[in-house]
Amino acid sequence: MKKLLHRIPGLSLLAILAVVSLELTPAMALTGDEAAAKSFFDLSNLWILISAALVFIMHLGFSCVETGLTQSKNTVNILFKNLFIVTMGVLTYALWGFNSMYPGDFNGFFAVGSPIANALDYGDPSTMTAEYADYTIWSDFVFQAMFAATAATIVSGAVAERVKLTTFMIFATLLVMFLYPITGSWKWGGGWLDGKGFYDFAGSSLVHAFGGFAALACVLVLGPRKGKYTSDGKIKPILGHSMPLAAIGVFLLFLGWFGFNGGSVLSADAALVSLVFVTTTIAACAGAMGAIFTSWVVLKKPDLSMGLNGVLAGLVGITAGADQMGPWSAAIVGLIAGVLVVFSIVFFDKIKIDDPVGAISVHGICGMWGTVAVGIFGVAAGEPESYSFIWQLIGTISVSAFAFITSFVLFFILKAVMGVRVSEEEEFGGLDVGEHGQEAYPDFSVSSR
Amino acid sequence: MKKLLHRIPGLSLLAILAVVSLELTPAMALTGDEAAAKSFFDLSNLWILISAALVFIMHLGFSCVETGLTQSKNTVNILFKNLFIVTMGVLTYALWGFNSMYPGDFNGFFAVGSPIANALDYGDPSTMTAEYADYTIWSDFVFQAMFAATAATIVSGAVAERVKLTTFMIFATLLVMFLYPITGSWKWGGGWLDGKGFYDFAGSSLVHAFGGFAALACVLVLGPRKGKYTSDGKIKPILGHSMPLAAIGVFLLFLGWFGFNGGSVLSADAALVSLVFVTTTIAACAGAMGAIFTSWVVLKKPDLSMGLNGVLAGLVGITAGADQMGPWSAAIVGLIAGVLVVFSIVFFDKIKIDDPVGAISVHGICGMWGTVAVGIFGVAAGEPESYSFIWQLIGTISVSAFAFITSFVLFFILKAVMGVRVSEEEEFGGLDVGEHGQEAYPDFSVSSR
Amino acid sequence: MKKLLHRIPGLSLLAILAVVSLELTPAMALTGDEAAAKSFFDLSNLWILISAALVFIMHLGFSCVETGLTQSKNTVNILFKNLFIVTMGVLTYALWGFNSMYPGDFNGFFAVGSPIANALDYGDPSTMTAEYADYTIWSDFVFQAMFAATAATIVSGAVAERVKLTTFMIFATLLVMFLYPITGSWKWGGGWLDGKGFYDFAGSSLVHAFGGFAALACVLVLGPRKGKYTSDGKIKPILGHSMPLAAIGVFLLFLGWFGFNGGSVLSADAALVSLVFVTTTIAACAGAMGAIFTSWVVLKKPDLSMGLNGVLAGLVGITAGADQMGPWSAAIVGLIAGVLVVFSIVFFDKIKIDDPVGAISVHGICGMWGTVAVGIFGVAAGEPESYSFIWQLIGTISVSAFAFITSFVLFFILKAVMGVRVSEEEEFGGLDVGEHGQEAYPDFSVSSR
Repeated sequence: MKKLLHRIPGLSLLAILAVVSLELTPAMALTGDEAAAKSFFDLSNLWILISAALVFIMHLGFSCVETGLTQSKNTVNILFKNLFIVTMGVLTYALWGFNSMYPGDFNGFFAVGSPIANALDYGDPSTMTAEYADYTIWSDFVFQAMFAATAATIVSGAVAERVKLTTFMIFATLLVMFLYPITGSWKWGGGWLDGKGFYDFAGSSLVHAFGGFAALACVLVLGPRKGKYTSDGKIKPILGHSMPLAAIGVFLLFLGWFGFNGGSVLSADAALVSLVFVTTTIAACAGAMGAIFTSWVVLKKPDLSMGLNGVLAGLVGITAGADQMGPWSAAIVGLIAGVLVVFSIVFFDKIKIDDPVGAISVHGICGMWGTVAVGIFGVAAGEPESYSFIWQLIGTISVSAFAFITSFVLFFILKAVMGVRVSEEEEFGGLDVGEHGQEAYPDFSVSSR
Repeated sequence: MKKLLHRIPGLSLLAILAVVSLELTPAMALTGDEAAAKSFFDLSNLWILISAALVFIMHLGFSCVETGLTQSKNTVNILFKNLFIVTMGVLTYALWGFNSMYPGDFNGFFAVGSPIANALDYGDPSTMTAEYADYTIWSDFVFQAMFAATAATIVSGAVAERVKLTTFMIFATLLVMFLYPITGSWKWGGGWLDGKGFYDFAGSSLVHAFGGFAALACVLVLGPRKGKYTSDGKIKPILGHSMPLAAIGVFLLFLGWFGFNGGSVLSADAALVSLVFVTTTIAACAGAMGAIFTSWVVLKKPDLSMGLNGVLAGLVGITAGADQMGPWSAAIVGLIAGVLVVFSIVFFDKIKIDDPVGAISVHGICGMWGTVAVGIFGVAAGEPESYSFIWQLIGTISVSAFAFITSFVLFFILKAVMGVRVSEEEEFGGLDVGEHGQEAYPDFSVSSR
Repeated sequence: MKKLLHRIPGLSLLAILAVVSLELTPAMALTGDEAAAKSFFDLSNLWILISAALVFIMHLGFSCVETGLTQSKNTVNILFKNLFIVTMGVLTYALWGFNSMYPGDFNGFFAVGSPIANALDYGDPSTMTAEYADYTIWSDFVFQAMFAATAATIVSGAVAERVKLTTFMIFATLLVMFLYPITGSWKWGGGWLDGKGFYDFAGSSLVHAFGGFAALACVLVLGPRKGKYTSDGKIKPILGHSMPLAAIGVFLLFLGWFGFNGGSVLSADAALVSLVFVTTTIAACAGAMGAIFTSWVVLKKPDLSMGLNGVLAGLVGITAGADQMGPWSAAIVGLIAGVLVVFSIVFFDKIKIDDPVGAISVHGICGMWGTVAVGIFGVAAGEPESYSFIWQLIGTISVSAFAFITSFVLFFILKAVMGVRVSEEEEFGGLDVGEHGQEAYPDFSVSSR
């Protein structure tokens, strides 16, 4: 998803600009090279847009996973939060985030944002700058905007079933608008992590570990759900209310990841996009296998929710290096992610960090794993700069630490100012009635067969 | 979605035909211009097909929204109606609608339809006429056919929970087969509204206001659900049975709209398609914000169903001018649509017009708003003809009035001939058992935790 | 989906290779022909990848249909099976299946498989061989891998609610890894059925009849669900638990079929892909009509599940000849499939072959029908070889018989070795608790309105 250094296959930028600027003139006399460049531009642009639509589906996937794995009395609340996050996220990204994350020349740590233009011709290729070789600025914006809300959505799952709605809405807005673009700019915006030996193809660190460690901070401030950990030290599982919803969610996330990773090639380059599809698919499948058999051994039963989280673990794991390894390397990365996620979920539960959907493990831990895995399995193909294991480690720790610390401070302040948690009565009665005055299944009657 | 006047970027039609007719010959000697034209044709054609698939998803989206927002005892009935509408709609469009909506030379008001050909080579570019610069006739048919059933689906939601199945099947067939193509032909088929100063990019009026005002007519003939309005003038809410289904539906509609609006560019033009993706996304998000905060103030609670309807309101609102304004103009159009939909839903409920899913407000009122909004915010870019506020008003009123009057008359006749409403017993017992002898959740057992 | 004989539109393969190998060199001087060829390659490659994503959705579709049409006490089990099948299927296809199904030169009946390479440059067009004119090897792999698991998923539905999990996992693995690629190689791998006069565009026989007859064999070995057929010869229906899930599944399968059939063109050829979209859509819609009205007459009620199965019947029916006939021929093929599926489902139930979701009828019977229908309605357009009714019959019978016999033997051996069926107690208590210790809807509370 890096765009400052962009490969232009066998053509000078001037040639491309010459071509596209001719698009609307009545007479063309293109050379074969110019014709090929124009066609590749149009194709790549369309692929970025289709990828944006696929990433959009991930927000539905998250909504389904989160509602499926939680109790039915909190369903309206979770759906409302997810609807708010994605719609608010796009708007704040337009208002500030996009220009803050891709600022051009800046100090490398933090850039002041600004609203996108209200111009029609920003989609016009003739307004392109060197950064946008294969797609329009509008395509870039809409693809990146769909990514932006993801970080907050990850947090949403971890704090579910007890967080106060208004507080979360404020936190999510600040996170998406200001915090996410900062670490994003460190690498993808050409900041201090760029060009050093750190590589994060589509965001194992910049999106997933960021979201996972923001989630960890919020859960620490918030505390576990009432009744989850009894006074005598026992863990009482609070189960979800619909495994079909959870499964639908994971399949939709898998689907959306074809755009998340495939679109991060930032062009329709045949060799790279097809490689990324293969590594993404294989890692997801290996993640499922890893989680299914690990949980079968550890928990003694073939566990569906672990299998589903295994798919997500594999996907998060391959996201940093989907274009940097062959299919069997991707299988190993995914398999390890799938094993890891089971132990991680069990571990966080043991130390009483209550994460209803396993978001910290899936996105935080596997996001870190995926990033360092590039340093182990990556072959540095197709990437002009090289990367190193040590910089992979530095990068993922920096991003995760920033997400954790800023989220902790911000959520802590919000706790002091307005409270972060619903009352005990509301928690027992459910946030649907408590916050929204609505139930998720009011006129649902089940036959008495 | 207009196709009679079609921009061919910098190439004469003859050049394109020369290229494509060469496709199957063993030896080519293309110029650069011809190569670029052939590639753009193939890319645009694929985009129209992918858009058709996206618009198809909208029918699943409508099904989910409508079943989610109604009682579980009417779920089989609603799913059956939606399955019937989309499958019948495609077939009647093939039989009559397509050739009636795009008749070529006609009187401007009404054209006689005819079945599409049973030919394989209609997909062959060499059979193209001047209207089809960037895609095959088959691609055009399948894209338009997916649109056609939408009008009836909108009605389906508004008359849910009390309409007689056979009557509705006959009404929907006549609406999709004969009535929808008439107003469609007025603008997109080159009829009396075309070339005057009326613009409707993807159908705020021709699809959505048409469906919304047909729905209003049917609801007036049909009357409200029993028990909705008590004799002492109170409104008793009849709630839906699954908010997750409703949310899934809205997210799928949002997704499908990328094809509905994006495909209506009628080519893969990079500048236009990417602009349309941005304006569509921004308007949907602003619509959600408008509805969420308006309903929060008016209803005192953050209301999920209003937020979901706000997304749809924003999408309907931007549909007429998605290629005619920048992102912040789109945000204003969507925001106003989101505010409007809340007041409109409350208003129709107050005057005892019972619309279980809010279809009249979302599609009718916001469809009208979106059409006149083009006259306010549109900058007439990329469109050879200019448009005016007054013609936007004339156009949307004409289309809406035609939909309302013809639907009213037709449904009134059907009421007299065969009845439009199920018996009171059936309404209380549910249409699933009454009309289909099936329940939606027969072997659904909920654990007694 | 045939790839050994591949049409290269008007260009010698050498010219293409010359183009693509130039892609990464700094200076190009393409002719118009070469530019057009490069663009067509990139576009086609992307279409195959998008098609792979669409076929992936079908696995979610199958999951939803199967869980929707079965009891809620077996939902976790069905979702687990489907998750396992698709993830295992991709991995075994990478390990053995792909190279066994497309072996190149072989004896025509059976080829030894091998793992795909762990290479990045397999996606590089310069490694292409003559078979891969329009897409990379990686794109081919991922598209075919998504197909591979489908056969086992079809079986999964038919054996639902009583099959032992571990046994089924072993059976499904062997079926997908070894058996499916064998019949696949007979035609698509250039084996004994190829070049004789047998045509199967996207797999009415090679995928669907194969899965349907494997399902029939397993059901015969397994026996019906307890209580389905009473001792006095009556049939007691065991209903599903969620018609919305079933409907969502069918709509998603319809959507995925655009990739299943559309991607099987194996290029973005405008004429062919648009024809395939039209025939696929029309056949699905006609299938719904056929099933709706047949079941209305036969069962006296407008039956939703029959209508849904009618869509699938029409889709399976058109799969063998979607590129070989015009829309109205496709309508007849789909309509007959829709009528057929109703009688077939009733027939199998009468002879006490218990198939909870109708998979044998939808995939087995309609797969056979679709294959022979090509011999009746196909016009042999766009296909270099001709086909005959008699060879269509020979082909579909050969494939179905192989699937039936090998599945029967394999499942029979597994029955003797480890058992294929859960205990009666577990069957009554549900496989969710019995096999997984999990419920599908544990914290689902329905309001007591």
